[in-house]
Amino acid sequence: MANAKQLSGAGLRGQVAGKTALSTVGKTGSGLTYRGYDVKDLAASCEFDEVAFLILKGELPNKSELAQYKTKLKSMRALPQALKDVLERIPASAHPMDVMRTGCSMLGNLETEQRFAEQQDITDRMLALFPGMINYWYNYSHHNKQIEVETDANSTAEQFLWTLHGVKPTALHTQVMEASLILYAEHEFNASTFTARVCASTLSDMHSCITGAIGSLRGPLHGGANEAAMELIENMKDPEDAEQKLLGMLERKEKIMGFGHAVYAESDPRNAVIKAWSEKLAKANGDTRLYDVSERCEAVMWREKKLFCNADFFHASAYNYMGIPTKLFTPIFVCSRLTGWAAHVMEQRADNRIIRPSADYVGVEPRAVKPIGER
Amino acid sequence: MANAKQLSGAGLRGQVAGKTALSTVGKTGSGLTYRGYDVKDLAASCEFDEVAFLILKGELPNKSELAQYKTKLKSMRALPQALKDVLERIPASAHPMDVMRTGCSMLGNLETEQRFAEQQDITDRMLALFPGMINYWYNYSHHNKQIEVETDANSTAEQFLWTLHGVKPTALHTQVMEASLILYAEHEFNASTFTARVCASTLSDMHSCITGAIGSLRGPLHGGANEAAMELIENMKDPEDAEQKLLGMLERKEKIMGFGHAVYAESDPRNAVIKAWSEKLAKANGDTRLYDVSERCEAVMWREKKLFCNADFFHASAYNYMGIPTKLFTPIFVCSRLTGWAAHVMEQRADNRIIRPSADYVGVEPRAVKPIGER
Ligand SMILES: CC(C)(COP(=O)(O)OP(=O)(O)OC[C@H]1O[C@@H](n2cnc3c(N)ncnc32)[C@H](O)[C@@H]1OP(=O)(O)O)[C@@H](O)C(=O)NCCC(=O)NCCS
Ligand SMILES: CC(C)(COP(=O)(O)OP(=O)(O)OC[C@H]1O[C@@H](n2cnc3c(N)ncnc32)[C@H](O)[C@@H]1OP(=O)(O)O)[C@@H](O)C(=O)NCCC(=O)NCCS
Repeated sequence: MANAKQLSGAGLRGQVAGKTALSTVGKTGSGLTYRGYDVKDLAASCEFDEVAFLILKGELPNKSELAQYKTKLKSMRALPQALKDVLERIPASAHPMDVMRTGCSMLGNLETEQRFAEQQDITDRMLALFPGMINYWYNYSHHNKQIEVETDANSTAEQFLWTLHGVKPTALHTQVMEASLILYAEHEFNASTFTARVCASTLSDMHSCITGAIGSLRGPLHGGANEAAMELIENMKDPEDAEQKLLGMLERKEKIMGFGHAVYAESDPRNAVIKAWSEKLAKANGDTRLYDVSERCEAVMWREKKLFCNADFFHASAYNYMGIPTKLFTPIFVCSRLTGWAAHVMEQRADNRIIRPSADYVGVEPRAVKPIGER
Repeated sequence: MANAKQLSGAGLRGQVAGKTALSTVGKTGSGLTYRGYDVKDLAASCEFDEVAFLILKGELPNKSELAQYKTKLKSMRALPQALKDVLERIPASAHPMDVMRTGCSMLGNLETEQRFAEQQDITDRMLALFPGMINYWYNYSHHNKQIEVETDANSTAEQFLWTLHGVKPTALHTQVMEASLILYAEHEFNASTFTARVCASTLSDMHSCITGAIGSLRGPLHGGANEAAMELIENMKDPEDAEQKLLGMLERKEKIMGFGHAVYAESDPRNAVIKAWSEKLAKANGDTRLYDVSERCEAVMWREKKLFCNADFFHASAYNYMGIPTKLFTPIFVCSRLTGWAAHVMEQRADNRIIRPSADYVGVEPRAVKPIGER
């Protein structure tokens, strides 16, 4: 069971920093819930746009609400020309998370949130626009192509794959992407979400909150882990090789990205879902190497260190099987987690006090300023 | 004395979120110290670049260290062409803090921090470039002028005023700006600095940390307060009018920006310093209205609510006397606080654990997903 660890110590671990009605992480009986629903049930029976609606508005949509929401999102995909101009000036060598951060920030200049009453529309606009934004930059900088972002894609998941590859994705790939986005959508007070809430607590605008969150998600200890996991497994020839390489890394006390969690004690409930999809994709692809080495990594880490795969580990092979370049893994996480971030910003705004903790001072004692000539 | 309040409650108030050797806020005997030095002493006898050196490197520079540091900063002021292109695409109607946030983020694409060993150079580059960056945008969007940012200015303070107005500033104005930047440079775990530390704790890059911090500083409860204070006082005809207007606002339970503080109990030590400069500027200008109404506001707020001016209140009149447009007040704060933010990022990196607090769950109980047709 995905119970929570006994938490204490640095990094505010285990300290309550506020209230939320959005999700539970590691509560007995169910590893992860969004507004009361088990994430496994949501991933099994919903598409991502339904879950985005749930997270942002509190309830799952009925058929007509969902249709209306999808129509709204579909109408909001176009990139403003000034944003395209900015994207075209970002070199191919840039970190795609820096592109996301800059694109989001630029959008805030062009379509500024003037009052909090606009928060839902501002969020929907980002939800609709982000997949096309990152893929516009990617295709322009890497393939010198100015893509059309107003596709016929019927969902956020499809829109991502369609704008990346320029064709309607297969049903299987869309289905995996729906599930993947659902798994990544919300996760209580993780570091990027907490960044968004601290920013929101100064009563700053939505684009500032999301821009800040993107910057935090970029870190290798957080969202960056799925890319690092990919770099790890792509060099593993087979399960035997994987075992040898991992044992070496553990002996050198290296951190293995995609394992461990700040809150879960024994497993991450998202892992079983994405692992099953990775296996299906491996079989559909007819090349199971990445899946096989990933499975061995999982076994070795548990045997050696009682460390389990978090959401990121099997995402690496799954995304790779869908032909997604490794550097775009964390941006996909953004396209999804945006919903959780924005919902937390709305929640913070509704009952706000500026987040301003204290520090333990460990510096030098009071001293007098010497004139510069005497230093 | 600027002792600290008894702290508790929401917003992590009074909860220790980490250690710092950078500053103390509200400790008995001295209101605010940077690395052991009283901010009042620093403001009285240093220029800002010395204090930036102190905050970032731990000790005040001697003459040759300071000269070297200033030469380095001077050599780093040029704006990359791609950054200029971006600034030129941001409309005049944009919020200048959104411009700062976007410019910083864009810079991160062009001059990405590849490893933490680069952190000092990356910071110095921002310190050198930010004043010219915001004033490039301001002059371009408001006056259709492409300014030269590689001026002969001898310090960060002078560079700001020079690139804003296109001429070497007076000695008095430069002196006030030196003091102002010193007052704003560092303030322990305030919301924007804490944003930077949360971001740093994922091991993200420096530009992400600073971009996030800018977004938090933008909020009206935080850095935005100096602009709001200006909007308040510019409509006050004289001290009597100020008193009437304030009493009305207090009766309507409106928040008065530039008053109160999350940590200080009875006064903000920065206020006396900037208030004295504001008075000098008023006399030099021969028009003391803004100073006089500000003084009356201070008296009324203390008499009615025991609320005192924080760093922001007399900054409004001081900046106005120097001909600085109100919308650029908070960006100046960025040009200064950048030093504190970056030093906190370096400190967080040196002894890191990901900052990931917990939340109190106040949402619905576990429930089952109904098929969409049955909702
Ligand atoms: C997620 C993570 C940041 C949680 O951090 P945390 O709450 O500070 O971790 P813990 O306190 O549980 O760590 C306990 C011990 O296990 C070790 N450990 C944790 N995750 C590890 C990993 N992935 N590989 C190797 N060792 C690991 C820690 O180094 C620590 O060892 P120590 O006591 O000798 O220092 C951490 O597990 C990690 O860095 N994982 C890899 C990055 C990753 O996958 N991030 C995505 C999270 S969804
Ligand atoms: C700085 C600030 C955010 C600190 O927040 P805080 O720690 O939550 O404030 P406190 O807990 O001390 O507030 C105590 C009471 O004084 C009131 N108060 C605080 N500052 C006030 C102000 N500037 N005007 C009117 N009332 C104020 C609060 O509303 C609160 O009243 P309540 O108990 O009826 O709700 C707050 O004082 C503020 O909003 N000031 C104006 C914005 C500003 O100048 N920011 C720049 C800070 S450097």
